[in-house]
Amino acid sequence: MKFTKMQGLGNDYIYFNCMEKEIGHPEELSIQLSQYHFGIGADGIVLILPSEIADFRMRMFNADGSEGKMCGNASRCIGKYVYERGLTDKTELTLETLSGVKQLQLQVQDKKVTSVSVNMGEPKVRDVNATLIIDGVEYQYTDVSVGNPHCVIFSHNIDEMDLETPGRKIEVNEKFPERTNVEFVELINRNFIKMRVWERGSGETMACGTGACASVVAAVENGFCDQDVTVLLKGGPLHISYGKDLIMTGPAAFVFDGEINEEDFS
Amino acid sequence: MKFTKMQGLGNDYIYFNCMEKEIGHPEELSIQLSQYHFGIGADGIVLILPSEIADFRMRMFNADGSEGKMCGNASRCIGKYVYERGLTDKTELTLETLSGVKQLQLQVQDKKVTSVSVNMGEPKVRDVNATLIIDGVEYQYTDVSVGNPHCVIFSHNIDEMDLETPGRKIEVNEKFPERTNVEFVELINRNFIKMRVWERGSGETMACGTGACASVVAAVENGFCDQDVTVLLKGGPLHISYGKDLIMTGPAAFVFDGEINEEDFS
Repeated sequence: MKFTKMQGLGNDYIYFNCMEKEIGHPEELSIQLSQYHFGIGADGIVLILPSEIADFRMRMFNADGSEGKMCGNASRCIGKYVYERGLTDKTELTLETLSGVKQLQLQVQDKKVTSVSVNMGEPKVRDVNATLIIDGVEYQYTDVSVGNPHCVIFSHNIDEMDLETPGRKIEVNEKFPERTNVEFVELINRNFIKMRVWERGSGETMACGTGACASVVAAVENGFCDQDVTVLLKGGPLHISYGKDLIMTGPAAFVFDGEINEEDFS
Repeated sequence: MKFTKMQGLGNDYIYFNCMEKEIGHPEELSIQLSQYHFGIGADGIVLILPSEIADFRMRMFNADGSEGKMCGNASRCIGKYVYERGLTDKTELTLETLSGVKQLQLQVQDKKVTSVSVNMGEPKVRDVNATLIIDGVEYQYTDVSVGNPHCVIFSHNIDEMDLETPGRKIEVNEKFPERTNVEFVELINRNFIKMRVWERGSGETMACGTGACASVVAAVENGFCDQDVTVLLKGGPLHISYGKDLIMTGPAAFVFDGEINEEDFS
């Protein structure tokens, strides 16, 4: 079974070209393949599928087997994959996800995709500056959906903080019936923020594209930032523009191609 | 550039067949490829090379780029690799390592290598029950070389302990001028021990074959165990026999084959 490992800002998934043949039991496969040491090691798997309503369809599964609705980093990687692997020669693409059809714009130089912009659709701001109490600590949060749910918390010195303890608890807090991603955001200036993310089903990751979008939406809605913001994640910077549309621009990279012998692998 | 990911008890390396062509700068390559998210992710890389004095030669590099003298888990994986990939049809092999020529015995069923025994040569017991003080805590240790250096410490409740804090400091303690691997060992009975390992240059790993050997040698030399001992590591069990020879028997597995495009990967 052939696969391709790709990463966007260090958010790495195992990509399967399912244009001709679907993969059975992707939930189990994601759990098995995502583990380090015994598996391939990744944040999850992504399937690239045909679509009846868009150029391509993506399904993504986290390391715990749960299905994700949408992932900005993965959608950029899909843009690079389908163009450079010859599945399309279009530089404007549509991608069907569980949170709707997304538009991708590929920036191409010498037949290589150097960066990808994704129109993330209209975010839903559900709660601005609401309050949550975890272990006796009060958190002010803004609840934003960018297809998937995000609980954005503005904080200080996020590089130093213990993300896991609050992350784990906020993810499953009763205020978020479908569980939530959690972003801790540090404001640097009106066009630059830093962010760490606790991803629903995966724990802390290097980067989360939808999380970066949600953080900028929350920062703008709270009056902290202007509409063009660079978000510095552990894996590197993303550019988010939140005007008429919500546009995320960032890199995507191939890491390696691989093949698993299903008989060897257990 | 083609590679194969293999693991022995979860101690995973990226294997390169260098029988026909050597690889330049393996130290840098190991640092680059071993990293998670942006690289392939592994405990290091292993080169399989021709030898003038044995059937094959191995070189292994840790995730920090330092060269290892010998690795029991990697040598078992090499046994499986060279047999199943058709580089040899012998089931008794010799393998040149930086700590001498090792003998491998392959157990084969239906053309698959089910386990590999490695004659680890004669261990050197350098210090039995010596004392080391780290951060005001006194540790009794036994210093054993199985080609590479091991500081074995008998302890309790090792599943619960913080290995990193003492591991990091003991690794570079002045008593070990070439740095040392550190094993914390819990005695269950005279034929069964549990072990956690802090590997020189890599940090905590799932398993360390030479560390398991050193732990059994230390347990026998201290009068705690008999000569046949099962060592339970985080990655699974290894069988060590310390009689006339020191023999380690355990599993080896293919995980996947891959190819890096050096242009894409940076």
